[in-house]
Amino acid sequence: MQKRLLFVTGTRADFGKIEPLALAARDAGHDVSFFVTGMHMLDRYGLTKIEVHRTPGVTVHEFLNQRIGDPQDMVLAKTVMGFSDFVIEHRPDLVVVHGDRVEALACALVCATNYIRCAHIEGGEVSGTIDELFRHCNTKLAYCHFVSSQAAARRVMALGEPAEAIYAIGSPELDFHANSSGVTLEQVKTRYDIPFDEYGIVTFHPVTSESDTMGAQAKALFAALETSGRDFVVILPNNDPGSEAILQVIRDLPKDRFRAIPSMRFAHFSELMKHAACIIGNSSAGVREAPFLGIPSLDIGTRQNRRSDAPSITSCTAANSDTISRFLSEDWGKRYPQDAAFGAGDAAHRFTAVLGDPSFWTRSLQKEFQDHG
Amino acid sequence: MQKRLLFVTGTRADFGKIEPLALAARDAGHDVSFFVTGMHMLDRYGLTKIEVHRTPGVTVHEFLNQRIGDPQDMVLAKTVMGFSDFVIEHRPDLVVVHGDRVEALACALVCATNYIRCAHIEGGEVSGTIDELFRHCNTKLAYCHFVSSQAAARRVMALGEPAEAIYAIGSPELDFHANSSGVTLEQVKTRYDIPFDEYGIVTFHPVTSESDTMGAQAKALFAALETSGRDFVVILPNNDPGSEAILQVIRDLPKDRFRAIPSMRFAHFSELMKHAACIIGNSSAGVREAPFLGIPSLDIGTRQNRRSDAPSITSCTAANSDTISRFLSEDWGKRYPQDAAFGAGDAAHRFTAVLGDPSFWTRSLQKEFQDHG
Amino acid sequence: MQKRLLFVTGTRADFGKIEPLALAARDAGHDVSFFVTGMHMLDRYGLTKIEVHRTPGVTVHEFLNQRIGDPQDMVLAKTVMGFSDFVIEHRPDLVVVHGDRVEALACALVCATNYIRCAHIEGGEVSGTIDELFRHCNTKLAYCHFVSSQAAARRVMALGEPAEAIYAIGSPELDFHANSSGVTLEQVKTRYDIPFDEYGIVTFHPVTSESDTMGAQAKALFAALETSGRDFVVILPNNDPGSEAILQVIRDLPKDRFRAIPSMRFAHFSELMKHAACIIGNSSAGVREAPFLGIPSLDIGTRQNRRSDAPSITSCTAANSDTISRFLSEDWGKRYPQDAAFGAGDAAHRFTAVLGDPSFWTRSLQKEFQDHG
Amino acid sequence: MQKRLLFVTGTRADFGKIEPLALAARDAGHDVSFFVTGMHMLDRYGLTKIEVHRTPGVTVHEFLNQRIGDPQDMVLAKTVMGFSDFVIEHRPDLVVVHGDRVEALACALVCATNYIRCAHIEGGEVSGTIDELFRHCNTKLAYCHFVSSQAAARRVMALGEPAEAIYAIGSPELDFHANSSGVTLEQVKTRYDIPFDEYGIVTFHPVTSESDTMGAQAKALFAALETSGRDFVVILPNNDPGSEAILQVIRDLPKDRFRAIPSMRFAHFSELMKHAACIIGNSSAGVREAPFLGIPSLDIGTRQNRRSDAPSITSCTAANSDTISRFLSEDWGKRYPQDAAFGAGDAAHRFTAVLGDPSFWTRSLQKEFQDHG
Repeated sequence: MQKRLLFVTGTRADFGKIEPLALAARDAGHDVSFFVTGMHMLDRYGLTKIEVHRTPGVTVHEFLNQRIGDPQDMVLAKTVMGFSDFVIEHRPDLVVVHGDRVEALACALVCATNYIRCAHIEGGEVSGTIDELFRHCNTKLAYCHFVSSQAAARRVMALGEPAEAIYAIGSPELDFHANSSGVTLEQVKTRYDIPFDEYGIVTFHPVTSESDTMGAQAKALFAALETSGRDFVVILPNNDPGSEAILQVIRDLPKDRFRAIPSMRFAHFSELMKHAACIIGNSSAGVREAPFLGIPSLDIGTRQNRRSDAPSITSCTAANSDTISRFLSEDWGKRYPQDAAFGAGDAAHRFTAVLGDPSFWTRSLQKEFQDHG
Repeated sequence: MQKRLLFVTGTRADFGKIEPLALAARDAGHDVSFFVTGMHMLDRYGLTKIEVHRTPGVTVHEFLNQRIGDPQDMVLAKTVMGFSDFVIEHRPDLVVVHGDRVEALACALVCATNYIRCAHIEGGEVSGTIDELFRHCNTKLAYCHFVSSQAAARRVMALGEPAEAIYAIGSPELDFHANSSGVTLEQVKTRYDIPFDEYGIVTFHPVTSESDTMGAQAKALFAALETSGRDFVVILPNNDPGSEAILQVIRDLPKDRFRAIPSMRFAHFSELMKHAACIIGNSSAGVREAPFLGIPSLDIGTRQNRRSDAPSITSCTAANSDTISRFLSEDWGKRYPQDAAFGAGDAAHRFTAVLGDPSFWTRSLQKEFQDHG
Repeated sequence: MQKRLLFVTGTRADFGKIEPLALAARDAGHDVSFFVTGMHMLDRYGLTKIEVHRTPGVTVHEFLNQRIGDPQDMVLAKTVMGFSDFVIEHRPDLVVVHGDRVEALACALVCATNYIRCAHIEGGEVSGTIDELFRHCNTKLAYCHFVSSQAAARRVMALGEPAEAIYAIGSPELDFHANSSGVTLEQVKTRYDIPFDEYGIVTFHPVTSESDTMGAQAKALFAALETSGRDFVVILPNNDPGSEAILQVIRDLPKDRFRAIPSMRFAHFSELMKHAACIIGNSSAGVREAPFLGIPSLDIGTRQNRRSDAPSITSCTAANSDTISRFLSEDWGKRYPQDAAFGAGDAAHRFTAVLGDPSFWTRSLQKEFQDHG
Repeated sequence: MQKRLLFVTGTRADFGKIEPLALAARDAGHDVSFFVTGMHMLDRYGLTKIEVHRTPGVTVHEFLNQRIGDPQDMVLAKTVMGFSDFVIEHRPDLVVVHGDRVEALACALVCATNYIRCAHIEGGEVSGTIDELFRHCNTKLAYCHFVSSQAAARRVMALGEPAEAIYAIGSPELDFHANSSGVTLEQVKTRYDIPFDEYGIVTFHPVTSESDTMGAQAKALFAALETSGRDFVVILPNNDPGSEAILQVIRDLPKDRFRAIPSMRFAHFSELMKHAACIIGNSSAGVREAPFLGIPSLDIGTRQNRRSDAPSITSCTAANSDTISRFLSEDWGKRYPQDAAFGAGDAAHRFTAVLGDPSFWTRSLQKEFQDHG
């Protein structure tokens, strides 16, 4: 029962999420191809289409859908036109879209109007931005839903989707961490020049709507860390508004105790994380990967609000030096039981199991709104 | 506090719904304009843009967004491009879209990506078609919701929308019926050559997914009506697949007891309905207008499924001659208390009251998903 | 033999040229409509679509084809899509496009691919800009050519067009000047506060590619004029790059002898010109209207290069004070025989005569390239 | 002085023409990439993009610009949008387009509006179809012209192009024939099962505007060939309207004297042609390659009208059995001196020589119309 699966990817971030699913589907014998568009195609964002092309055993279709500066709705319109021509020509059995970007929405719209099955990955999550609206539209347009958590599944049901079309397979990213990274901790330390035996990992990104206080927040946070006398690997922030103020604080830290690294290969970062004494900051790694790996994490500020409530997570503001220092003394190096709220690291396996069930392919494309309560 | 309101209309049907709101807004002192597109612009569908142009005191902008035969997604893309250029040029304070068609979705998408307030009319309803998906996407994209019933309001809330953005104003169509039609019953009878003193009104439309049984259903229904010995005004069906079979049945009915009329002016139909002994068939008039007017109605088949449960409605299949004849004998000419499930006929008034509240205009465009239960 | 004629207009300038043709076609009994797009639709450019709407007895279709800042090729693509939908819906017998703008090219392309007859107005002229390329493309795409002069006709023939498809009807603008303006000179003087009995008219526009020397050129020109002791009406330049430098020179002129006017109604300008002692500057009025009216004109600089060689025209650079003063003393108030290089002011009449010939409508749409020499 | 050259290709046919130029440019050290679009991308037309991907040492960019059934102007609009985004992102130094198809026109338009140098290959030719209009538009839009013959050069000059922008390099296809094919005649005969020692080659394509008489024409032509008693290799026609009638005639020919072959690899066809006694039919091979190789050819009907007048060509209608039999007896096996009207088989070499001249890159992008005579 080989099927023609088409995975849509617009950014390195969503590629990281759908790659495990695509590889597993390929290995299960399906005909897998990628529709590569969005930021992947733009020089300014690193021309990351190259990473998709490196995947063996799949077909890659490129579509340039924008120029720098295009408004979102124009990108939507161009993607709709291009993807519509594409599916008319290629007729996939299933289109897989991820998340909440305009490219995913455009492709889900095309699938709905052309009666092509569309699977949506990581629906039901909240972020409080315009992208969140697109995510929920994707839920309404999709044929089925592969969600990361029970909370997400509940939200997809609230949106009226039938329970039998919702599969809580967990977050596909965790699949990486569930497996051996392929590198040793020694190799990681050598490559990135990390001298510590015991270390915490810090990643502190700017929050767009708080960009003018990011400097103060960073100052407070890193002051508390410095006071602790511990050693830290610091991953530098992305370049959203507010990052410059954070970078300035990091530059002034003592270099022998704060090792700053611009970015790491994924396998190396995974290995480093597995041995960390704790994870600190406001990246999703702290609320999703850390609980999964049982590592204590300190979640700073509002960025990951409402994303998780695992017991291994301590939440506070950057200014709350008491909570920070208590966390660093009490939780440092501790290990918690694995938290499976975002899955058991077997999302890809669960995904292909669903595809392998013949009844998956025969449900009506006409969905009926499910009222609850 | 005059505001610039832009009403999007793509069909005669949605114009009938938003016209009362637009007129009331105009009379309340707002600057009202229409963005006329879709079927309105096409000769094949009667070039109904002319009706919009007849509205006094408003501005009309035309946009041809398709040719006959265009796929839905292409229409979406062209409407997105055209409407985006339009709002950049005209910057309305509020865009009003209705229902579930692709034009409404295109405009709601443009509003969301350009941070323009968008009001969605008649969200939260179910129909079981692809259009329903577009309706719920509109809900997710809109700034606020003017819904027809409490049931619809509950569904919009289930979709995560904040309660304070949902206004159950009732169905704007009922506003027509709540007011004097402007014509007398005698005028209606004369104009349309209706000889009866007592009459039922029958409207039986084809259901696309049941098109091959529509002839048999029509035969059974009209046979039961004929047996009753009563007199009926029959409004001919629209021309969806299956209509020919229905028309053939109607042609063979005795003309002295079944007066067939292709279509009626709205005011005349309203007056005729107010004096009818009952409403029979599967149009929305039977489940929405009839209960509002307290007139008994017989709802045939699946077309209006889940749309209402007023006590004045009897539901059965076309083949159920027992129920049909019992309805004709027991309910004929009866009057029920007004059912206000779809409002009290004051939707336009409630609409302008909301617009007149300064706090309506100051809520954040960023919505937060509301989890329930 | 009534035909359905569709005139495309994108700017006030091209509307001024095609309006006389459209009115004459209407009066000859044809069904005339306008496709209004381009700058006409944009607030920044005065929303001049209103002027088209004022034309009695014609139908007006609007199409917004751009937002401020759109690149030319994007405007082209959007106009192609919109106009293609339009002609599929409306099927005109003849589409009339003018000149060299991207809207005209888009519509000519649509006509060619849909086998709709397209008449091109004022082909075969040269300007040395990118727009000129579009003009010649229009020539190749059009079914027939209504040109302004024999020189233009020769160029259209050089482009391979068949002689029988080329009609040298003259410049439609001259039709205005050939008729009574409808106002008296006294009315014009009163309205615009012009105290002179004898006056020259000066219009000096910036040349984009010489924008940095426009100030110096203006200084030299107006100094020579001032020296002459004559009186002048000065029409202010348009706002292309370089205009500010010209304006500054004009501001410093003695107001009792230089009457500066921002812009004039067309009829008033026509009457003023007919009584002028001479026309000075670099507007097309000096090389086209002035020779037609027999008025001496002084053409300054390169802007009207290669546009005319009538004996009533003296050409020189702004720095050539000798030639300027000789012109002012010798040609002031003189009258030349009418120059008919750009027609006899009966372009509209000739246009409708062509349309009235049944053989015009039966030539093959397939053109054969004509080799010469 | 390495330059970034982008070659646009939409069909196998134009790829055959530009491939020699691209390879030579690559070997001369330029950075060569292809923009692959049009029929190349469609399964129905053999997905010939694969052949472009086989070219070593170049980069290939794909762009799907249509679906089957799209009108020409819609394809134009989509190509303009996609190619405009592409050149904004990639900024080539020179875009090379070929011939007369809508993709070439779209790209030439984008180059003109973005001030990117565009070279047009094989301008100045005539064909009497709508495509010819596009060809001449390309001439007007292009920066420079690489034409096949002096006749074409003259036509490009008549179109007003400056002489110094016109390079008569000959037809790039002839470059293949000027070189060794890489296969022996014996290999060709074995592979395609050709038993003859002496043979003529026949290729007879339908003419769209004469599709209803193609059967009669084919019958007359092949009857005359059969009468001659000679042996023939018959290449089957393409599938334009009228081909079925031709195929039917071919099916009834005696198989031992008429060897019918659907299509041949290019190298094999080249070798077969070099040893043919004559070329018969209406393909361009008869009027272009045959004279170049000095092989007598019989040009049937109107399809190649006005394309050549080499002494080795005999022209007549299919019904003219006298001329056909005289040609077969008198010209069979003859050899003429090489005709260089379409070049000397060194087009690629001449092309790179032009690119290697620094002055090629510094001429103004603003062209001035050249009047002649």
